[in-house]
Amino acid sequence: MFDVGKIAVIGGGSWATAIAKIIVSHTHHIGWYIRRDDRIDDFRRLGHNPAYLTSVRFNIDEINFSSDINRIVEGYDTLVFVTPSPYLKNHLRRLRTRIKDKFIVTAIKGIVPDENLCCSEYFHQVYDVPLENLACIGGPSHAEEVAMERLSYLTVGCSDHDKAKAFTEVLANTFIKTKTSTDVLGIEYASVLKNVYAIAAGICYGLNYGDNFQAVLMSNAVQEMARFLKTIHPIDRNIIDSVYLGDLLVTGYSNFSRNRTFGTMIGKGYSVKSAQIEMEMIAEGYFGTKCMKEINRRLHVNMPILDAVYNILYERISPQIEIKLLTDSFR
Amino acid sequence: MFDVGKIAVIGGGSWATAIAKIIVSHTHHIGWYIRRDDRIDDFRRLGHNPAYLTSVRFNIDEINFSSDINRIVEGYDTLVFVTPSPYLKNHLRRLRTRIKDKFIVTAIKGIVPDENLCCSEYFHQVYDVPLENLACIGGPSHAEEVAMERLSYLTVGCSDHDKAKAFTEVLANTFIKTKTSTDVLGIEYASVLKNVYAIAAGICYGLNYGDNFQAVLMSNAVQEMARFLKTIHPIDRNIIDSVYLGDLLVTGYSNFSRNRTFGTMIGKGYSVKSAQIEMEMIAEGYFGTKCMKEINRRLHVNMPILDAVYNILYERISPQIEIKLLTDSFR
Repeated sequence: MFDVGKIAVIGGGSWATAIAKIIVSHTHHIGWYIRRDDRIDDFRRLGHNPAYLTSVRFNIDEINFSSDINRIVEGYDTLVFVTPSPYLKNHLRRLRTRIKDKFIVTAIKGIVPDENLCCSEYFHQVYDVPLENLACIGGPSHAEEVAMERLSYLTVGCSDHDKAKAFTEVLANTFIKTKTSTDVLGIEYASVLKNVYAIAAGICYGLNYGDNFQAVLMSNAVQEMARFLKTIHPIDRNIIDSVYLGDLLVTGYSNFSRNRTFGTMIGKGYSVKSAQIEMEMIAEGYFGTKCMKEINRRLHVNMPILDAVYNILYERISPQIEIKLLTDSFR
Repeated sequence: MFDVGKIAVIGGGSWATAIAKIIVSHTHHIGWYIRRDDRIDDFRRLGHNPAYLTSVRFNIDEINFSSDINRIVEGYDTLVFVTPSPYLKNHLRRLRTRIKDKFIVTAIKGIVPDENLCCSEYFHQVYDVPLENLACIGGPSHAEEVAMERLSYLTVGCSDHDKAKAFTEVLANTFIKTKTSTDVLGIEYASVLKNVYAIAAGICYGLNYGDNFQAVLMSNAVQEMARFLKTIHPIDRNIIDSVYLGDLLVTGYSNFSRNRTFGTMIGKGYSVKSAQIEMEMIAEGYFGTKCMKEINRRLHVNMPILDAVYNILYERISPQIEIKLLTDSFR
């Protein structure tokens, strides 16, 4: 059996915190790169992440914090990347250490901007990490619910089944059930697209479309996702598996999803800028929409929902008009 | 093109009322069988159904009401059955008129009790209606939203595509988009199963399982539905079409679904009897669960969700225990 060795988490947000908690409960030691020293100081003092999932308590003695990514990368074998996708490149730029021999797990639900690659592709192409050393974590998983220890199902994708299996054993506990998949790219792209579709769901909700229509939207979103995945990575996959469909549903139907909330504001008539200011954060699907649109320019997959969200967010076309057109394309 | 002729609606509930409104807006005449004379009198006086969707106004001159099913059946060519499934047999027992030459459309989301047949099978086997004269209406469609003229998508299933097409033209309007299917049995069974799964969703919600788990439950429910449909009626179908997946989602994720509410009460510890008394009505999925369990006794499809709901509702096994076991079977 593959040995995951010493594990470190890269990133300090809520999903990073939830994953760190799951792992350290099992291993009793992790490395943890958090960018800001003041956050690390507060974390040490308070015994919890000062900014995210503050109710999740940690035994500080089990954590080797550092704001120097190189110290963490050098000392650990398995690196779990959980930064927001727009910042991944900036973190990696500071690397002076080779990472091609590490086992890289990405739990980033986003595309690397400008490159228009999903994270495993980026590590493979830019950092020469071989595919069998690249894994991802997927599945329907609001970090807040994982923090509350509510039953959740995670899928670890890796082209090397043994390595996926080994990492699931680090994650599995009384409230996390795990399974493996070899479809790394499919899981990564699905997790980007579901944010786009959650924005679409929010826009339609903001425009006063009802539950009957939302169900049709979600059904068409799964179909669109299936078409895209089949084109970009044509392997046998079951799109109604929880790692694809479930991840879409938990985001598309959640009132707590930032992406859905962002979409709702757009549907209600806010501009993109004012919605972002009002939310005091940027919904990841906003960037995902642009990246996916650009990726699809060369693939030409029929993606009317992606197109509609792109037109609304980036071309300033009226949501009313764009969604009305979308409804005509649905089946 | 097939001529649907004169259309009558059989049944006086909310879905019957919504469908009657859609049809009469198009045809300007319908026959309408409602069991109770006092309801018909009130309907005539008020200009709306006195008990359901009371905000939907009708031009009474366009409706030929009768509490005598034979008068309605004799005078009309297309009969749209929209009674609750447990009462269908009682209505039909009063028939003294042959219906084998009529075009029969069922919009009943349930199984005929004791017979354990879905409605089109029942009309075919007991009333000799040929398959090409049997159609059904499916798709995600809360009657209340249809009444509010919120955009909804309906599918008409019929083995004869021309007949399905002809009937969609009666339904289509500015807020109803339609399509056709030849999968009558699949649509009917899906609409029964989704009520069972909505009860399951309610039970899990009542037991405090979170959104992450609900998404896994719904994904597994679609998989279970696909397995069952493939066994009972093995044709090529796309289970992520809105008539299957969408109908499941609108019910499973709705707080207004009677079936989901019923399940929630069960999950919170109410007995079946006290939940039914409290709700002042019986959730159709309660009967559907028993019928589907009996149908599956001879098919042996792997249906852990159906089994769990059955055990909870009919075998008085604790929801905690049964759902815990179910979570272990999920992928």
